[in-house]
Amino acid sequence: MNSLVDLQALIRQPSISANNQGLAECANILIKIMRKAGIHSSLLYLDKKVPPLIYGEVKSKKKPTGATIMFYNHYDVQPVEPVSRWNQNPFSGNIKDGKIFGRGASDDKGELITRIKAVEYILKEKGDLPCNIKFFIEGEEEIGSPHIKTYLQELKHNLGCDVIIWEFGYVDSKFRPIINLGMKGMLYVEVTAFGPLIELHSSLAALVKNPAWNIIKVLNSIWDDHYAKILVKDWYNEVRSLTKEEVSFMASQPLFDEVEFKEKYKIKQFLRGVRGNEVKHVLTDMPTCNISGIVAGYNQEGAKTVIPSFARVKIDFRLVPNMNPKLQFVRLKQHLLTKGFQDIQVKYIHGVAASRTPFFHPIVKVIKDAAERVFGGRSIINLSSAGSGPMSIMTEAVRAPCVATGCTSLFANIHSFNEFAKIDLLSKGTKYMIEIIEAVSKYSIPRF
Amino acid sequence: MNSLVDLQALIRQPSISANNQGLAECANILIKIMRKAGIHSSLLYLDKKVPPLIYGEVKSKKKPTGATIMFYNHYDVQPVEPVSRWNQNPFSGNIKDGKIFGRGASDDKGELITRIKAVEYILKEKGDLPCNIKFFIEGEEEIGSPHIKTYLQELKHNLGCDVIIWEFGYVDSKFRPIINLGMKGMLYVEVTAFGPLIELHSSLAALVKNPAWNIIKVLNSIWDDHYAKILVKDWYNEVRSLTKEEVSFMASQPLFDEVEFKEKYKIKQFLRGVRGNEVKHVLTDMPTCNISGIVAGYNQEGAKTVIPSFARVKIDFRLVPNMNPKLQFVRLKQHLLTKGFQDIQVKYIHGVAASRTPFFHPIVKVIKDAAERVFGGRSIINLSSAGSGPMSIMTEAVRAPCVATGCTSLFANIHSFNEFAKIDLLSKGTKYMIEIIEAVSKYSIPRF
Repeated sequence: MNSLVDLQALIRQPSISANNQGLAECANILIKIMRKAGIHSSLLYLDKKVPPLIYGEVKSKKKPTGATIMFYNHYDVQPVEPVSRWNQNPFSGNIKDGKIFGRGASDDKGELITRIKAVEYILKEKGDLPCNIKFFIEGEEEIGSPHIKTYLQELKHNLGCDVIIWEFGYVDSKFRPIINLGMKGMLYVEVTAFGPLIELHSSLAALVKNPAWNIIKVLNSIWDDHYAKILVKDWYNEVRSLTKEEVSFMASQPLFDEVEFKEKYKIKQFLRGVRGNEVKHVLTDMPTCNISGIVAGYNQEGAKTVIPSFARVKIDFRLVPNMNPKLQFVRLKQHLLTKGFQDIQVKYIHGVAASRTPFFHPIVKVIKDAAERVFGGRSIINLSSAGSGPMSIMTEAVRAPCVATGCTSLFANIHSFNEFAKIDLLSKGTKYMIEIIEAVSKYSIPRF
Repeated sequence: MNSLVDLQALIRQPSISANNQGLAECANILIKIMRKAGIHSSLLYLDKKVPPLIYGEVKSKKKPTGATIMFYNHYDVQPVEPVSRWNQNPFSGNIKDGKIFGRGASDDKGELITRIKAVEYILKEKGDLPCNIKFFIEGEEEIGSPHIKTYLQELKHNLGCDVIIWEFGYVDSKFRPIINLGMKGMLYVEVTAFGPLIELHSSLAALVKNPAWNIIKVLNSIWDDHYAKILVKDWYNEVRSLTKEEVSFMASQPLFDEVEFKEKYKIKQFLRGVRGNEVKHVLTDMPTCNISGIVAGYNQEGAKTVIPSFARVKIDFRLVPNMNPKLQFVRLKQHLLTKGFQDIQVKYIHGVAASRTPFFHPIVKVIKDAAERVFGGRSIINLSSAGSGPMSIMTEAVRAPCVATGCTSLFANIHSFNEFAKIDLLSKGTKYMIEIIEAVSKYSIPRF
């Protein structure tokens, strides 16, 4: 079925939502691949400035009123900087040592192709699907899905389904699929501090406020010295703590492989010395405050002595259930005001609430059993991924449980340089999606 | 004499010491200009990797044992980033509205050309100089003059002089020359914090230390919240405070023009609310801690969510008399050790001690009077510039007083984009240097 050739075609078309590069082009390649697979697909445009959404559908001829799976995926990718760190062109799609390389190879073009190919395979084999399938594929996931609500509104009569299979899932190095039942929320902000109109000679540092120092003091006021607590007033007010049942369910799942992970990334120890069960706990349920980027002044080789005219930081706050990104943003602004910081601008880049599907929802066992049949061992179920995405927007609009699972290697360098997908896992992932389609078709539906 | 054509030729040859660009080429253009002016000049090479030094000399035929002036200048320039902010090519040398534009137009190629042309003018007019002149022109001033000591050692038998005229001096918007009798010292360091081996997805921020956060906490521990005090233990131990006589001399000089400066650079108020005489005081004598550059992670458009693999900051500490840059560096390293910061590297980029020529040295009045004759009004004498340079290295090697004066407009954007020199000031500067040569030739020399 030429799965790899199709994946290469997708990877070779850059589709970076952060700078609006190649999105419509990528959507057009994708829709051809989907139509070739037998999926009835259409491109939806809000307007020319917004990347199109792809909606795809296959009705089961035999059981048109049976179960329906919706696949949520995205065709946009993260930026590729720093380009110099890639061992090859970031959009090469080259295959080497059983891996296919390039931005999007795993996140999310690789995962998406397994789903399309699963449908194509069953249709080719049997001429029909055992259940209904829907594809909802957006082009703005990596920038916080600013138009997903509008697209969902447009498609509101097509959204009925019994389960959403989320865009991705990891497989660890023991080939255990990691199934996530939720995602953290996110508040992404940009804080800019302004200094003199133009960069000044730093001999004036005794007189003129340096915006980089301003940003340092701003940041220092937000996150405590132990990287444990966000110091913004009322930040944790609405946080819903884990229930006893959730805690003991979490404890029943395998541990995170700390040794392997630390060795891989040359990390001596985890923050605050967390280990064992605590690792799962913080990944699942700890609000964080991360500096994704900071820049001011001169950063080339050698010495230059200046007072920069501005300093800018990009901060991503991960949120847990019941935290509202817009409310947290108001609190952050209030915090900076109260602390008396001046000449700064705080910009809301995007935000989304956390999502959780209850671990005791019966569909969870259906997926888990499918995973264990295909991967031949135990799966790992997380109450929530440590990552974020518009899952809560989807589950609210669609009113269905959502399970995030797939075939991405835990060390696939997603969002980093030299991203790849393991070809054996892509193949396993396709089988897994076929198994999920079969299993869900036998599932008797409790509507929640 | 084609002063502007020669200056254009110098500007159009990039000579950036920070990245070792075009230095020998610039030295070769310069030495031709000097020889054409009648200055006996030679290029000294330490080795091929070090930018050459230019030593020039003109003996007075009439008074070969009379007074000697040494001009200290440099032919290297600061980097030009951010290039996009320049209104024209940073090396254009274009003339517009009475200004000549380009990196180095003022600092220091413009100043240097006035000195060469002053000598050329007198030689052309009179066939002789009234006193002896030496030129010591290096190519590494903007990176902390790492080889100046070696060059001084090489030239130790040629260094005798009665006064060093330092590379530059400002002229304020009331056409008052600002004469500096010293410079602050400097310790320039680069601190790098290391994180995971490669950039990681920021969903792991609950577990993995972010090097940008590490740098924030490092910086926060160094400079207090009021930007008044460096928090490193024993930082101020050796500081020699101003004497009563220096304080009252300082008070006798005109105030810094705060209103004009603030308006020009859109600054609401100075740090810590300083004003009036305090402004001169901090510029002259306050040790500072400035962030010249900071960078980590993703800084392009839009949102990317990563834990950077490293974060780096460039800090310039200005030092005052009796502080030793190497000792301060040891203290800084000890501070970071004591505070328990881990996974950081502290690099000594360059350092130099402060320098002061006593305000009561008789040569000061000789220069000041010359300035007031040429500029036709009152001059301003500062005990020290707020800037730094290898003045203390020169004065120690040469054992002569040093006066920094010249014709750079206070708003000439040196070290910033759109650097320029005002052509009327270049012309006035040349006359001023002629006047200095005449005045020093009449000066009876007290050797200190």
